[in-house]
Amino acid sequence: MPKFYMVDDSGAGKYHSNRKRNLILGGICAVLAGLCVGILIGRYGICPGQSEPESTPEKDGVFLPGIPETIIKDGDPEIGKQLIDAVDNTKIEEYLRLLTLKPHVAGSQNNLDLGNWIKDKWMEWGFDDVKLTPYDVLLSFPDANNPNVVRVLNETGGIVYESPLKEANLTGEDDPDALPPYNAYSPAGLVEGDMVYVNYGRVEDYDWLEKNASMNVTGKIVIVRYGKIFRGSKVQIAADHGATGVIIFSDPADYTWNGDPRVYPETWWLPGSGSQRGTIYTGDGDPLTPGYAAIKTAYRYPENASEVGLPEIPAHPIGYDIAEKILREMGGEEAPLDWRGGLNITYRLGPALEKTGWKIQMNISTRNQIKTAYNVIGVIRGQIEPDRYVMMGNHRDAWVYGAIDPSSGTAVMMETARVTGQLVKSGKWRPRRSIMFCSWGAEEYGLLGSTEWVEQYQKNLRERAVAYVNVDISMQGNDTIRALGTPLLYRATYEAAKKVPNPNPAERAAGRTTAYDTWLHNYPWKDEDGNSRNVPVIASPGSGSDYAQLLHKAGVTAVDFRYTYNANKYKVASYPLYHSVYETFYAVKNIIDKEFEYHRAISRMAAELVRSLADSLIIPFNVSDYSWALDRYRKALDRNYGDTLKTKLPNYDDLREVIANFSTEVEAFNDRVANMNRNDPMAIRAVNDQLTLLEKAFLDNEGLPDRSQKKHLLLAESSTDSYAGSSFPGLVDLLFEIEKAPDVDARWERVKRHFSVILFTIDSAASTLRDVIKFIPEN
Amino acid sequence: MPKFYMVDDSGAGKYHSNRKRNLILGGICAVLAGLCVGILIGRYGICPGQSEPESTPEKDGVFLPGIPETIIKDGDPEIGKQLIDAVDNTKIEEYLRLLTLKPHVAGSQNNLDLGNWIKDKWMEWGFDDVKLTPYDVLLSFPDANNPNVVRVLNETGGIVYESPLKEANLTGEDDPDALPPYNAYSPAGLVEGDMVYVNYGRVEDYDWLEKNASMNVTGKIVIVRYGKIFRGSKVQIAADHGATGVIIFSDPADYTWNGDPRVYPETWWLPGSGSQRGTIYTGDGDPLTPGYAAIKTAYRYPENASEVGLPEIPAHPIGYDIAEKILREMGGEEAPLDWRGGLNITYRLGPALEKTGWKIQMNISTRNQIKTAYNVIGVIRGQIEPDRYVMMGNHRDAWVYGAIDPSSGTAVMMETARVTGQLVKSGKWRPRRSIMFCSWGAEEYGLLGSTEWVEQYQKNLRERAVAYVNVDISMQGNDTIRALGTPLLYRATYEAAKKVPNPNPAERAAGRTTAYDTWLHNYPWKDEDGNSRNVPVIASPGSGSDYAQLLHKAGVTAVDFRYTYNANKYKVASYPLYHSVYETFYAVKNIIDKEFEYHRAISRMAAELVRSLADSLIIPFNVSDYSWALDRYRKALDRNYGDTLKTKLPNYDDLREVIANFSTEVEAFNDRVANMNRNDPMAIRAVNDQLTLLEKAFLDNEGLPDRSQKKHLLLAESSTDSYAGSSFPGLVDLLFEIEKAPDVDARWERVKRHFSVILFTIDSAASTLRDVIKFIPEN
Repeated sequence: MPKFYMVDDSGAGKYHSNRKRNLILGGICAVLAGLCVGILIGRYGICPGQSEPESTPEKDGVFLPGIPETIIKDGDPEIGKQLIDAVDNTKIEEYLRLLTLKPHVAGSQNNLDLGNWIKDKWMEWGFDDVKLTPYDVLLSFPDANNPNVVRVLNETGGIVYESPLKEANLTGEDDPDALPPYNAYSPAGLVEGDMVYVNYGRVEDYDWLEKNASMNVTGKIVIVRYGKIFRGSKVQIAADHGATGVIIFSDPADYTWNGDPRVYPETWWLPGSGSQRGTIYTGDGDPLTPGYAAIKTAYRYPENASEVGLPEIPAHPIGYDIAEKILREMGGEEAPLDWRGGLNITYRLGPALEKTGWKIQMNISTRNQIKTAYNVIGVIRGQIEPDRYVMMGNHRDAWVYGAIDPSSGTAVMMETARVTGQLVKSGKWRPRRSIMFCSWGAEEYGLLGSTEWVEQYQKNLRERAVAYVNVDISMQGNDTIRALGTPLLYRATYEAAKKVPNPNPAERAAGRTTAYDTWLHNYPWKDEDGNSRNVPVIASPGSGSDYAQLLHKAGVTAVDFRYTYNANKYKVASYPLYHSVYETFYAVKNIIDKEFEYHRAISRMAAELVRSLADSLIIPFNVSDYSWALDRYRKALDRNYGDTLKTKLPNYDDLREVIANFSTEVEAFNDRVANMNRNDPMAIRAVNDQLTLLEKAFLDNEGLPDRSQKKHLLLAESSTDSYAGSSFPGLVDLLFEIEKAPDVDARWERVKRHFSVILFTIDSAASTLRDVIKFIPEN
Repeated sequence: MPKFYMVDDSGAGKYHSNRKRNLILGGICAVLAGLCVGILIGRYGICPGQSEPESTPEKDGVFLPGIPETIIKDGDPEIGKQLIDAVDNTKIEEYLRLLTLKPHVAGSQNNLDLGNWIKDKWMEWGFDDVKLTPYDVLLSFPDANNPNVVRVLNETGGIVYESPLKEANLTGEDDPDALPPYNAYSPAGLVEGDMVYVNYGRVEDYDWLEKNASMNVTGKIVIVRYGKIFRGSKVQIAADHGATGVIIFSDPADYTWNGDPRVYPETWWLPGSGSQRGTIYTGDGDPLTPGYAAIKTAYRYPENASEVGLPEIPAHPIGYDIAEKILREMGGEEAPLDWRGGLNITYRLGPALEKTGWKIQMNISTRNQIKTAYNVIGVIRGQIEPDRYVMMGNHRDAWVYGAIDPSSGTAVMMETARVTGQLVKSGKWRPRRSIMFCSWGAEEYGLLGSTEWVEQYQKNLRERAVAYVNVDISMQGNDTIRALGTPLLYRATYEAAKKVPNPNPAERAAGRTTAYDTWLHNYPWKDEDGNSRNVPVIASPGSGSDYAQLLHKAGVTAVDFRYTYNANKYKVASYPLYHSVYETFYAVKNIIDKEFEYHRAISRMAAELVRSLADSLIIPFNVSDYSWALDRYRKALDRNYGDTLKTKLPNYDDLREVIANFSTEVEAFNDRVANMNRNDPMAIRAVNDQLTLLEKAFLDNEGLPDRSQKKHLLLAESSTDSYAGSSFPGLVDLLFEIEKAPDVDARWERVKRHFSVILFTIDSAASTLRDVIKFIPEN
């Protein structure tokens, strides 16, 4: 520019005015000419792309006006740090206090109020959509005018002992809305007579009784202790054995600490009046609408239809104070050593009470009732792929105050939602995929809220849902992380835990700076051959919380995690206050997590895991871990049943072969992903679709043998107690049955068929990983 | 540019040499300066994109190096014209001749040879992948050493008449591999005795017999004529009524023309020895592996298992020459007027033959046998979305030469594959999505090849398959196009037909220049209220060919079309030579389509339809047509059953309401698509995913009542004959049963339940069309 004026100045004076004008004009022309050429060069010579793309598209490329570059860019890990830093333990405490102010059982106004509060908060934090979803589901409530009781009657029918109508008020647990202890879906009824003690009420306990004491329970009430198996199974097994009613008590051996007299509110040990509520329905979802959402237009079976499968005999839970009184009156032989718990009595089997003419009475008036349960579903719209959902959820309904189950999880979910929503609202960031937060209703009754919702939207979810992170109980101790999850999520879960500062000062002092370090230290994972994997254990997900329906009905890869107590030290059946009225804010704030450090750790882990799933260019699923897991399942099967299977299944070796083929496809898939063109948004989408499809490919339409609603062939829990930790649950169930079945041939046909279905399913999963136009193997 | 030199020239002479140099330098500097500025302006001012995209991504955009601009560009209709022009009728003739040289029944070496020929051709034409897929399926064959016969025996057991062991050799149909007439899956057996004539063998025919002639068929052979319902149903209904065997004959009334003596090889009318082969299996897919692919590791039920459902009584087809002889011997009452066909006899009901002691004998030795059936699957890789499949297919197996069924379709598919493949191979074009051509094996036995393949890969297909175009019989006359299809494909099918020059000279002369014009003229569609829609009829797809499994198991939107005869003029049960040995190249070349003009029209239509589905930016599915179709189904239901349903279903009006809601969602969806950002490849993909998901959303996991393998709630044929043309087939089936069922209450519960499932499914389909983050309606 300066030189231009120099040219102009070089001719000076009036004499040269004409010439000067020419010079100025010429200079302007020169500059303009240069400008024109320059623009042309700049636009078409240097500017990337767009010139004649038809002729040589590969060399050029395409410009997409208005589209952010994040369409082909990986998520920024820095965002994860910001989220982790933003997680605030005082907020979690604030949410937990609010969530636990009142009892909020499913179907109650209190629980709906909390749902609306959550909706308001999510909208305030910048969510793009929040909806409440009503489902009219069959719930079950005790009759306030006719309380449930268990009694010891004397020979004249006089009441000697009676179970208390509610738990003792120790720290103000006397809200009029608090429901007394009961077992949901117990049929109403008055039953009387002898009583038999059957330990934990497992099949093997009845077998022992029959073989060693020549006793059966037909026509009798049974009393069993909580623990080992699902309480609904205890009732079903008792009914299958002809019992007329079931009393379930919490034994001090399973819910206190070596006779430590200090119980709640001094410690977290269960006090003597504490009683564990809980459903005894063994199905999932609204009992009257199996397979379909309980919406206005739904068909509802009558309650007594075989499709409904409600419990057949009355059941009632009691605490150990009254249990001790009742069991002290028992007659009959002494119970074997391992049936004796922590009560200060001689454990006897029954059936008669010691005193002649005395008997047990159960008077149960619990009634089923259709009420509306609400989920709250909130969405943060994804920037690039709004139709892909990364989900986090927990239920909201609690048996009473629910400070641990579920509100410790809900408080954590709220804080995760807050930090995520507010970062989006600030305009600094928006995740690639949509993030969906879910507050489920009526989980306690049998995963009703999540089941109905998944049933209603399973077509959308099967196509669009990427992963589901469940945090139900977020904190039940300060020892370590504990996780259940699918193999695809192992690595992403570890990576998230590695970013979480260790909340335990002693652990930090021991040099374990992250939550992951303690997890790995306390739960190192060995493979079937005993070799260390140098990662912490993640167990297979069963049906214990809302992830079950996402996984089984929609094939959504899922994980569930929490902070937990030292299970090696404390041999309790669960955290002691589980489902009692004493799950209070007081318990959390004064006993278990005073500073909410452990809550915070789980919120941080969830925030980072959800971010990485929602924001990574390639979804961070590790398909190799599925190869490893399949091989582990096979080895466990081999160890437990291999000899039998080899003789009965001529094609038993095919299992090894299909798993080896699967592993080969996994490696080829990983190679393709490593070498793919990351400038191609469609190629990225296609790979992510393959990653998301894999879990769904392990579903089978027919479901497990005799459990058609369980569609995932690998990751359901086995319905037997004898084979925890491994998989092929349908096969294991059938083999377990065979061990005592007479008509062995027909049962072996079922094994053969289900074995083929497993082979087929692993093969079909492998086909989803192949090159999308070459998914048919060479024959 | 010139002005620059003008400036330089304006100072002249030696005196001014220094000044001149300054001027020159200055000018150069000016030009350079202008150039620099220009380059900067050109590069960053005008050039689209990339400068600091982090800060203002929405305003800028993104450049994707190496990605073709077709990622956001619609397909070029000019390509369709090129494909249509390239379709060559002489090639089709060449393929048909080759395909019909030898008999090629499923499982035969001849049929495998054709499969390999197809594979070679496809590879030659530039396909990216071609595979043969073997399935070991249960087939059924007559025993060459012990031929099937139907006999009239006299009182001493002497043979009076015997059905011929094969059809007459009229134009050289004497290949040793030609199988004689038989009904596949007939059980072997020798049955003898009386015989009853039951017209078409429908339920209403047996009802008539019982009511008006007080006759039942228990323990008797029945003789029925072909037509009206599927032959497998004829056998099943006969078995249900207690018959011991079924003879099925082709009556001249249904297979010739008003007694025209000129039959094949003079005309296309069935000659007297012609006999219709065909399966009598009523299931779909390999009978021994229901629900799973018949691969090496599959579990196979024993043939007599209830899950298999093979026919229970022997059946055999005969031509009208021998039928006339047999029926002339019948005794008993005269058959009613509308039971009388075209034989030159008095039709009598039986049961006894006229002559004392004479009887009918069936000696059937057909045997089931596991053989390998092969599909050929060829893929042209899509340029942008290789993981989305547009499919075209037809079966390859034929009962004998199969010149019409299926080779007229295969020849057309080959030509469509040739023109498509070669255009891709030329480098001028590659479709956006992958195109998959499928030559199915063992369709004739019950859609075995397509079923097993869909079962094996249904997880891939449910996610990736966009649409399926079936051309089985491509040409069975020269009157007009006839189509079956799903509502989503109505418009795309019309558009393709509009581009096809009318192959009929008389029609062209009448001003109908395209195949579409004649179709619209001959089959105008009126809605339920009698209003013209100004489009031709497309019927609902039943289970008549391989589209059934794609639609029912994988939810793939499908269409099937052909050129056909004038069905108003010729009241035949099918084209007359159907499944006889006379489906020869001779018949096509000399009688039906001498110049292969009608074949060519169908190939052109298929090529353009496949192209538009594979190459359009937005998949050309018309969701509004589903609104219209649902409303039509509802009105038809209302007309037929409305009065009853209103009294029995308190929520009957909900059907209208959910359909109205569906229509509202359709309109909102269309608005969103009209206003979407077409520069965003992910938005395009998301909309296409929604379009593809819609058909799948009409599937129900449980399937139709008593037909669990039929998953599409709207588009299965009803299993009754009384309600053709409308839909809600499961509901109609149940209502049809109720009309004569005693236990009405339980049946009405099933109606209520299935009605709710329909409401649920329409609602859930609507949810797939909503904004992907707002699929939960306001409550």
